[in-house]
Amino acid sequence: MVIEDILEGLKKKIEKNLPAGTTISNVEFEGPQLVVYTEEPRKFADNGNIVRTLAKNLRTRIVVRPDPKVLLAPEESIELINQTVPEDSGVTNYDFAPDVGEVIIEAEKPGLVIGKHGETLREITKKVGWTPKVVRTPPIKSRTVKNIREFMKKNHSDRKDILKTIGRKIHRECTSKDQWVRLTSLGGCREVGRSCFLLSTPESKIMIDCGVNVGSDDDMTPYLYIPEVQPLNQIDAVVITHAHLDHQGLVPLLYKYGYDGPIYCTHPTRDMMVLLELDFIDVAAKDGKRVPYESADVRNALKHSIVLEYEEVTDIAPDIKLTFHNAGHIIGSAVSHFHIGDGLHNVVITGDFKFGPSRLFNPAVNKFPRVETVITESTYGASNSMQPALKDAEKNLQRIIKETIDRQGVVLIPAFAVGRSQEVMIVIEEAIRKGIIDEVPVYLDGMIWEATAIHATYPEYLNNDLRRLIFQKGQNPFLSECFKPVDSNELRRNIIENPHPCVILSTSGMMSGGPIMEYFKAFAPNERNTLVFVGYQADGTMGRRIQKGWKEIPLSSGGKGSETVRMNMDVEIVDGFSGHSDRRQLMEYFKRMKPQPERVFTEHGDERSCIDLASSIHKRKKIETRALTNLETIRLV
Amino acid sequence: MVIEDILEGLKKKIEKNLPAGTTISNVEFEGPQLVVYTEEPRKFADNGNIVRTLAKNLRTRIVVRPDPKVLLAPEESIELINQTVPEDSGVTNYDFAPDVGEVIIEAEKPGLVIGKHGETLREITKKVGWTPKVVRTPPIKSRTVKNIREFMKKNHSDRKDILKTIGRKIHRECTSKDQWVRLTSLGGCREVGRSCFLLSTPESKIMIDCGVNVGSDDDMTPYLYIPEVQPLNQIDAVVITHAHLDHQGLVPLLYKYGYDGPIYCTHPTRDMMVLLELDFIDVAAKDGKRVPYESADVRNALKHSIVLEYEEVTDIAPDIKLTFHNAGHIIGSAVSHFHIGDGLHNVVITGDFKFGPSRLFNPAVNKFPRVETVITESTYGASNSMQPALKDAEKNLQRIIKETIDRQGVVLIPAFAVGRSQEVMIVIEEAIRKGIIDEVPVYLDGMIWEATAIHATYPEYLNNDLRRLIFQKGQNPFLSECFKPVDSNELRRNIIENPHPCVILSTSGMMSGGPIMEYFKAFAPNERNTLVFVGYQADGTMGRRIQKGWKEIPLSSGGKGSETVRMNMDVEIVDGFSGHSDRRQLMEYFKRMKPQPERVFTEHGDERSCIDLASSIHKRKKIETRALTNLETIRLV
Ligand SMILES: [Zn+2]
Ligand SMILES: [Zn+2]
Ligand SMILES: [Zn+2]
Ligand SMILES: [Zn+2]
Ligand SMILES: [Zn+2]
Repeated sequence: MVIEDILEGLKKKIEKNLPAGTTISNVEFEGPQLVVYTEEPRKFADNGNIVRTLAKNLRTRIVVRPDPKVLLAPEESIELINQTVPEDSGVTNYDFAPDVGEVIIEAEKPGLVIGKHGETLREITKKVGWTPKVVRTPPIKSRTVKNIREFMKKNHSDRKDILKTIGRKIHRECTSKDQWVRLTSLGGCREVGRSCFLLSTPESKIMIDCGVNVGSDDDMTPYLYIPEVQPLNQIDAVVITHAHLDHQGLVPLLYKYGYDGPIYCTHPTRDMMVLLELDFIDVAAKDGKRVPYESADVRNALKHSIVLEYEEVTDIAPDIKLTFHNAGHIIGSAVSHFHIGDGLHNVVITGDFKFGPSRLFNPAVNKFPRVETVITESTYGASNSMQPALKDAEKNLQRIIKETIDRQGVVLIPAFAVGRSQEVMIVIEEAIRKGIIDEVPVYLDGMIWEATAIHATYPEYLNNDLRRLIFQKGQNPFLSECFKPVDSNELRRNIIENPHPCVILSTSGMMSGGPIMEYFKAFAPNERNTLVFVGYQADGTMGRRIQKGWKEIPLSSGGKGSETVRMNMDVEIVDGFSGHSDRRQLMEYFKRMKPQPERVFTEHGDERSCIDLASSIHKRKKIETRALTNLETIRLV
Repeated sequence: MVIEDILEGLKKKIEKNLPAGTTISNVEFEGPQLVVYTEEPRKFADNGNIVRTLAKNLRTRIVVRPDPKVLLAPEESIELINQTVPEDSGVTNYDFAPDVGEVIIEAEKPGLVIGKHGETLREITKKVGWTPKVVRTPPIKSRTVKNIREFMKKNHSDRKDILKTIGRKIHRECTSKDQWVRLTSLGGCREVGRSCFLLSTPESKIMIDCGVNVGSDDDMTPYLYIPEVQPLNQIDAVVITHAHLDHQGLVPLLYKYGYDGPIYCTHPTRDMMVLLELDFIDVAAKDGKRVPYESADVRNALKHSIVLEYEEVTDIAPDIKLTFHNAGHIIGSAVSHFHIGDGLHNVVITGDFKFGPSRLFNPAVNKFPRVETVITESTYGASNSMQPALKDAEKNLQRIIKETIDRQGVVLIPAFAVGRSQEVMIVIEEAIRKGIIDEVPVYLDGMIWEATAIHATYPEYLNNDLRRLIFQKGQNPFLSECFKPVDSNELRRNIIENPHPCVILSTSGMMSGGPIMEYFKAFAPNERNTLVFVGYQADGTMGRRIQKGWKEIPLSSGGKGSETVRMNMDVEIVDGFSGHSDRRQLMEYFKRMKPQPERVFTEHGDERSCIDLASSIHKRKKIETRALTNLETIRLV
């Protein structure tokens, strides 16, 4: 059956399911959803159940759009909307998108614009024809988010074509009589870096993650040249678990080499991913290296990205449904659940996850409607990989900061932009608010402020406690006055030249470059100051050398030869802030998983950690387990 | 480096290695070997060591050819050759092939034409310029062999081009910096039928076997549509272990769908393969079914086949060397050894093999220069799959025949054309020669006679005892006067209408059609006659039903409805003639393998047999084992 016939069939089915007197003008696929065009958006708005019932009957995601000819002029619409929403909703912007018939209303209190059960929204539709979408006015402006929104708007016509093509591909008919499911590991097995899997059936090919191993020149990229993934344009979808370079660093490369399909990820992952990729290109250029793609490829990838919410079941291929669940690792990180065929098989790929307490996120989800196979990360999978409790880590950090401040010193914390920086920020903010530490400035340098702004843009991805604090108590820790973004060279110079008690959080996290180096040079010689490591320092990095106790630190200073820094400052290591589950949490995750899987494969850890975890789960649960190897293909069904 | 430069380099190297005064005019690849053209073939003939030394220094197979302009006219050459070879060599034919500068001398006593250490051959070269090749005048003429030889001669120009293309591909430069070896199972795992593997490295792809599951409509073909083997023209070589449909039945299909490379197999495998494939098409047509390829594809495959001898190390890809070893299963069957990279890895794929005594073949080879991974057949891999000793089976068969003949009955033996038929023939011939059985005619119907002729064409593939019997004692059992090929419908009619004490061996082996059915209809009602099963009867076949004791046998008779045969004849089952190793022999094969492999994978058996054998080998030898699954890819390195 050709796609036109499928659409015609769907249109007839919808018409049969509509209340008498309601008509539709057209139907079309747009990415994973079916768009229903109507000249009577008001009638649909009147009956909030129509769409829900349709979606249930057709077993697909449905969106109703006004036919362009029934849309009121924007100026007129704004006036009518202003009359409809409560005075104190704090609307800060209107944004009309004629291609999708949507008006995006940015408001400080989005709940008031939505109304009880969406009443106010339906009211607006009835008055203006446009479909209103509400977004929260972000408390901190993110340059990245702003640029992305503008880019998407500028390219809406391209994007419409792209989504139509993708939609028609997803909803094509299944043709094979064979039934099988295979998983091919392209990278990230018995190693960390270049995570990449291919899930395939006779109908479809799904790539999960496409990371880069920044620490290695030889084994930097996944095995993208093997026949299973070639040609790249035969891949149906790329699914990204979260925005860390070892999981998404090479996505733009896929487009450079011919992939032309969708990227599925959460909203924060999409934005953070763009930020990281552009920075990756930047940092490499400064080191005289080259990333194997250009910023044009990053933009092309962005144009093809489709964002999904947690718990939203989505068709991504004729025989595969994807559902993201919270992974608790970084903002927008997702445990990815694949439902294959009509109940044939269920695969969960955890990506990186934290099954434990955190200031920012809820623990990773481990309850699924069904699951037979799990692929799990194993960063701390070795039997001795226990981490201190978060509570102890926090107390430890607060004590170190207090002591340094008390002796008029500077606390320097190298940190990754995304993830633990924000966790540490919250701990420090609380300590200051509660008076445990004096009110000193907390400087944020590198990408940390920008990443924090993205966190502030998507508060619905934060955990229950933090959301309650922000929305109900009106107390957003990220907005605390103690935080000072270092947004100019002058400010940085000033901090360095006029040392005063303060905390500095700066990238890079392993001291392999970035603004942290300038601070380090300035503050290392003074024994009043403290360098605090809150993250893992890999072998061969400057951070690791300092941890080992080097006293003379050679630093290259631009093209002007090298200088030596005399290391007198205090060095402290605070474990326990990891975004990964430690060994105990990994075992707990499987112990409490519901339902119990039939087999577990381990990856994303050094060889010993992967084998250790696989063998422990096998012993504990008496199910099939294996530490995967790169380049192998496992038959799941 | 382009291939022209590689050839130029080789030419220079050869010139350096030649004795002073010897010159060559050109070098070119032809399949796996390097052809050296010279205007002075006599000088090369003078010094038998030149070629051997060259081959050793260049680590490749070398053949020296006279430049066409130095060849004497055929008539003149025949006269000179006749003067050179001893009178009693019994030359029966000369065949000049100008494209390769060869004259094929067919003689009854090839040893006399060759002379001591090849002296006479060198003499011939010096006189006529042509390179003489000697073949034995086959004692029984095979139609298949004759047709194949004529076909190859008629297509010599095509073939020259094909071999040149293949040769240049094999000797291309390696380009990848990665090192890995993968094995993908495309069929024949946890099942018998459609055997097919793919061995791949960053440089090359080798397919091993490409069988058809004749017993199944749904799972008839290997998974040839998966990306690892697509497009087919990117496969470097197809290696065929032996001529049974479950190992080679779909080779012509590969050519139909775009494969254009070589098939490596032994000489008898090549000929028997053509016979089986054409018969496969024939039989299907008679059953109103269709084979998914045509006889033109069979011929195209033949044109691309390259025959190798046992123990001959051959480059089949830039980084892979293949060596065939005797497998003892059927004529020309080969245990295939793959040496990958420069000592990187060694894989042995056993194919079907017999590690035990047989009238026809030596036991399978299990000593290799090196071996890390073995893929083994498991037909009788289950722990209870013991077969009676061959000696007992033979005695049993002789006794049954004797008793039947003594009571003036007919012995009817359904048998497969290739393999056990010839074994049974030898046992019967011996019994008659030794007077254990009276001198009765032994009729051979179906393809059995043709298959026997192929055995007679390649006596060097038979075991030591049989070869000694044939060559030293001049006593070829296949030539015994007791054997009567049924080469006309009249003869068959005659045997049926004038019953007399005799033995009839006929296809098909499981009584699912073929001439056996006519004999059965005629002889079943008489209790003097005996039906003897010497091979396995699969579920659902007529043979199995008779074994179960059915007394009324319904038979379709062409389009004219069905008739019922009254079953009064004696039914006997004689186990022990299998061409497969039984459980004990499989375990012995690994116990005595040298060197000991690091891991063994099982296939070619029902699920239980494969799992049983894998687990027993693991327990006995403490090495990694696994029963493979179709569609999985194992990483070997
Ligand atoms: Zn991560
Ligand atoms: Zn990771
Ligand atoms: Zn066989
Ligand atoms: Zn077989
Ligand atoms: Zn074991």
